[in-house]
Amino acid sequence: MSTEQLLQYRQRMRTELDRVLDFWLKYSHDTQHGGFFNCIGKDGKIYDDLKYVWLQGRQVWMYCRLYRTMERFHKPEILQAAKSGGAFLRRFARVSTGGSPWKCAFCLTRDGQAVKVQRTIFSECFYVMAMDELARVTGDNDMQVEAAQMMDQLVHWVRVDSSGLGRPQLPGDTQVCNMAVPMMLLCLVQQLIEGRSGEEVDKYKEVGSWCVKEILQHIQRGGTAILESISVEGKELPGCQGRLQNPGHALEAGWFLLQYSVENGDQELQRTAVDKFMEVPFLTGWDTEHGGLFYFLDVDGYCPTQLEWSMKLWWPHCEALIAYLMAYSQYKEPALLERFSQVYDYTFRHFSDTENGEWFGYLTQEGKVTLDFKGGPFKGFFHVPRCLYMCEKILDSILEK
Amino acid sequence: MSTEQLLQYRQRMRTELDRVLDFWLKYSHDTQHGGFFNCIGKDGKIYDDLKYVWLQGRQVWMYCRLYRTMERFHKPEILQAAKSGGAFLRRFARVSTGGSPWKCAFCLTRDGQAVKVQRTIFSECFYVMAMDELARVTGDNDMQVEAAQMMDQLVHWVRVDSSGLGRPQLPGDTQVCNMAVPMMLLCLVQQLIEGRSGEEVDKYKEVGSWCVKEILQHIQRGGTAILESISVEGKELPGCQGRLQNPGHALEAGWFLLQYSVENGDQELQRTAVDKFMEVPFLTGWDTEHGGLFYFLDVDGYCPTQLEWSMKLWWPHCEALIAYLMAYSQYKEPALLERFSQVYDYTFRHFSDTENGEWFGYLTQEGKVTLDFKGGPFKGFFHVPRCLYMCEKILDSILEK
Repeated sequence: MSTEQLLQYRQRMRTELDRVLDFWLKYSHDTQHGGFFNCIGKDGKIYDDLKYVWLQGRQVWMYCRLYRTMERFHKPEILQAAKSGGAFLRRFARVSTGGSPWKCAFCLTRDGQAVKVQRTIFSECFYVMAMDELARVTGDNDMQVEAAQMMDQLVHWVRVDSSGLGRPQLPGDTQVCNMAVPMMLLCLVQQLIEGRSGEEVDKYKEVGSWCVKEILQHIQRGGTAILESISVEGKELPGCQGRLQNPGHALEAGWFLLQYSVENGDQELQRTAVDKFMEVPFLTGWDTEHGGLFYFLDVDGYCPTQLEWSMKLWWPHCEALIAYLMAYSQYKEPALLERFSQVYDYTFRHFSDTENGEWFGYLTQEGKVTLDFKGGPFKGFFHVPRCLYMCEKILDSILEK
Repeated sequence: MSTEQLLQYRQRMRTELDRVLDFWLKYSHDTQHGGFFNCIGKDGKIYDDLKYVWLQGRQVWMYCRLYRTMERFHKPEILQAAKSGGAFLRRFARVSTGGSPWKCAFCLTRDGQAVKVQRTIFSECFYVMAMDELARVTGDNDMQVEAAQMMDQLVHWVRVDSSGLGRPQLPGDTQVCNMAVPMMLLCLVQQLIEGRSGEEVDKYKEVGSWCVKEILQHIQRGGTAILESISVEGKELPGCQGRLQNPGHALEAGWFLLQYSVENGDQELQRTAVDKFMEVPFLTGWDTEHGGLFYFLDVDGYCPTQLEWSMKLWWPHCEALIAYLMAYSQYKEPALLERFSQVYDYTFRHFSDTENGEWFGYLTQEGKVTLDFKGGPFKGFFHVPRCLYMCEKILDSILEK
């Protein structure tokens, strides 16, 4: 592939990132109560004012990351928006429902009252990401301390005792290892150690290598499948849960592992990241009939029980773009750029809204937009801008060499 | 429409009911641990052995109802299967997780260990249905007493104090009235009073009229919409939750109300059941482009946030068939039979599997089967056979006159 093509990709990533950012700057800010509206229609109209903690945290993180690491986004309005989101989170996200003082809500009213609490760790994870990144741009040490304290709590819930999450103990509910947990923690480790050193960092690095070991256990069936959920012993679980594959999630794990292994100079892990977490989900997850990545698949070919299994969602495609471009920048194998190119064509043709900006999130198997909002309970200012941002950065590095 | 046509409908209902019953008798019985397999592939293969309490209870109820009220199903094998399911439920469904001794699990392992508990009332409702109907065919008074005790607990949770369900109190989580709750209770009231009299029955009748009043509050926007969730004051709620419509659910409420009002000689309520709970969901919920009933709709035309909103599910079509046929048998208005006929054509063309028996449950908006199993976590031996059974009965009564 020619340099010309790579330049065109970069140009598109840049333009698209600018447009996506504009959309959220224009429509998502709640100037009355602080924080961000999450439910935004195709043309920018707010159709619900609930605030989802995952998405609040992610938007703070993304604004700060853009502000801190890309010159054209080093603007006061972006910093201001990030601070507003951070203040909203610090004031309202944590709920004290009898359990730990670190437990965060999943969903808040517009003015910050808790509506729903999940018995998982993810609201808290995005709280850490937001606080740490915000501390980096503001220099506010309190926020960094808060991120570190929350991280300690998370590691405790995951590795020592999960009872503080509030899940009832049931005899048939055997402990399951979901790939999301070590993935998320690894992502936080990478966030917290970036550019730092010392004792804290050593502590996080130990967590990081534990996460990698955990993620690798999800390679199952002699290396031919990445399974979302496995037993504590690292074995395949019975039933639908055990057979579930989520190609987009595997691809995301792939670039997390690749980034980690490059930074740590672990060549064997690099190759595993590409061969197992990028190649396998493509071979099993790409829809050869209509294009695009399936959302869920059963490794034995049964029909998944998730109603949305055959739909094409935006975020797996975002993760795939990052994964294949990162892999190509590492190995320069034309086949990897081919994968990127194939995903790129599908993604920009189907998800990007050339009329109103931002991307659609949900397509039928055949590629028709079936939910046309730009923001919803699980779609915020995160996967799309992170993908465009990372692809632009990677293309910069490839083109500079 | 000619008698010939009605006879053809009845013949199809009969044949189909026989085939559906055969499918479940053949594939769903767990002869080792008792109870029923719920996850059954298109050709009868068990793809997961988890047992869902809603579906266990519903299957017991349906077997008993067929055994008790249709001569051709008065067979020992059906009674035996119902008893096995009932014994499994009595032994394993109730969990004592610190709260009430009446709380039931949502999902059990094959050998009956609790996997998941919902903080709602529905597992318990289907337990009542199963026990009461099983008591009627076996004459086992203990079961009837158990059904009555569970019903008391349900009414207490719904009308007095829901804290025993285990939902945390959150400041932003204002109380919401979901139509499912009074609908389900009304269904239980009808079950428990059938053919009985006395003090207990008077108690249930009071509950029944409370349920009807509650359901009627879901008629909103000057009678042009049936909204799933409303405030405790009977007003529309803000946001997506407040605007949500579920046409199949409204239609089900329609025939519950029609049945109730016919039994109670309430002509005004009869008319409301038809004009509001059957006509409105058809006008708003029928897909004029591809046919079939949408699963969810937003009353203001926003895109619902449920990923499956535009899919065509089997059960709303089952409810619609019962509703329009029952309404026609009451009023003999040709327009009502036309509605039935339109739903019938779509339903039998798209859902019924002429190859392996039983019905598919999940279609795309365009009508393609997208999940091909016959049984899953929410699809059991219930909506299809109840629909066929009730339609056959209603056609009998129309044709006899």
